[in-house]
Amino acid sequence: MRIAYHTEPGAYSESAAILFNEGAEPIACKSFDDVFAVVERGQATHGIVPIENTIRGSIHRNYDLLFQHDLPVVGEVQLRITHSLLGPAGMLVSDVRRLYSDPQTLSECEGFVRGLGNVEVVAMYDAAAGARAVQEAHSKDAAAIASDREGRKFGLEVLKPNVQDNDDNLTRFLIVGRGSSSTAAPGADKTTIVFSLPSQPGALFKALSVFALRDIDMTKLESRPIHGRPFEYMFYADLAVSRDDMRCARALVHLAEFAPWVRTLGSYRAWKPTT
Amino acid sequence: MRIAYHTEPGAYSESAAILFNEGAEPIACKSFDDVFAVVERGQATHGIVPIENTIRGSIHRNYDLLFQHDLPVVGEVQLRITHSLLGPAGMLVSDVRRLYSDPQTLSECEGFVRGLGNVEVVAMYDAAAGARAVQEAHSKDAAAIASDREGRKFGLEVLKPNVQDNDDNLTRFLIVGRGSSSTAAPGADKTTIVFSLPSQPGALFKALSVFALRDIDMTKLESRPIHGRPFEYMFYADLAVSRDDMRCARALVHLAEFAPWVRTLGSYRAWKPTT
Repeated sequence: MRIAYHTEPGAYSESAAILFNEGAEPIACKSFDDVFAVVERGQATHGIVPIENTIRGSIHRNYDLLFQHDLPVVGEVQLRITHSLLGPAGMLVSDVRRLYSDPQTLSECEGFVRGLGNVEVVAMYDAAAGARAVQEAHSKDAAAIASDREGRKFGLEVLKPNVQDNDDNLTRFLIVGRGSSSTAAPGADKTTIVFSLPSQPGALFKALSVFALRDIDMTKLESRPIHGRPFEYMFYADLAVSRDDMRCARALVHLAEFAPWVRTLGSYRAWKPTT
Repeated sequence: MRIAYHTEPGAYSESAAILFNEGAEPIACKSFDDVFAVVERGQATHGIVPIENTIRGSIHRNYDLLFQHDLPVVGEVQLRITHSLLGPAGMLVSDVRRLYSDPQTLSECEGFVRGLGNVEVVAMYDAAAGARAVQEAHSKDAAAIASDREGRKFGLEVLKPNVQDNDDNLTRFLIVGRGSSSTAAPGADKTTIVFSLPSQPGALFKALSVFALRDIDMTKLESRPIHGRPFEYMFYADLAVSRDDMRCARALVHLAEFAPWVRTLGSYRAWKPTT
């Protein structure tokens, strides 16, 4: 199994790929678009992308890419995200005068950063760029907030681990493969679909009724704009049922009675956290 | 009317503030958080933030800020977004060898950028940073993609206007004021609410029923993670009805029968595009 993932070794996506399949060979890609392209060209058997984080919310770019490509979702994994304060060896937390990270990571560590007092905060393009800036600064007063793995990559030490404000910071990743989206993966108990609706009052209520009236639990509903039709939306739904379950098949046929289009993105085994 | 907005003169938010009230004095703020803080401290009477774009989707940070602060939504405006290729005077489109912009703007102009051929693309923190980089490069082969207003600010000329792939690129802004969220603004015909739901199958279906069964149109539904409760969500809904309408009042009381909490963020006049 060769799993394409976004960005360089050390990224959370690489860890997630290993978590999905310990023996997998991770293939680094320079964008989420490339992850899909590499799988389509057959240079990887699978691709992995983050789809949702418990703090940030959904990663919409990847919802859009799932829609644009015809690669079935074959699995999901969840990974806990932790941030560390990183700096050169021998530096102390009290030495920090400049702090580098990306705006999102900084916002997830707001309480910790405020506690540092009078520190110049420099917003970078991503957390890796912040760690690189600290490595290149060769200074004993510059630190970065990033993952431990990024720290090791740039020769930085962990000055303080777990500096995030919220410990329930989890990212859910989807794994795409090749083949048909209408075939359920082995052990499937979850199905992800995307559909549009006519623009009329109550349309979404009617759509949800096809699942609710069949006791199918919807674990997530995400709306995304339809390009070229301002303020109209398509909906991504996660259903706690296999595509092969007769209730699911019937609900989708029912939905297609009034939805202009309905597409199954994949049916796969829901992530079961190991305790 | 003094309207706080994010970032510097030239930003789309500043134009939106003027569109909302021609005589308003725009107050520049260095973050979306600051926009809310400045209104709370009374340094501005109103604040304006982008909430949704027809290509990018919702701006979640601002949904979260609406939730965290107690400032009622008093209005909305829509603005058309256009991107231009900008460079020093005398430069031609065929001269471009390096191109600066932020990743989001670049993705909205993907077709145009691909058409430029062999050009080095440099992703910057935001579009303004790209325009500044071109100004500072003093070179005849570096260009930026940003708004015309950003171009003027950095002394750049429009080499080519409207380089975005999709002409239906609209941003919707919300205006917050001070006072009570339960009072409808004059001429209100739209209400924005936020609510949580018990984690049980069919809960969202039940929630939507309180509106559907009263013929109240829901124009938007957005889910956001609840921090500290992984993979549970709260929902923001836009309803095409005034808070003062008896149907709306009854629907909200009905929703509160099973929703752990329901909050009205504001009731205001929906944006009517002038033709």
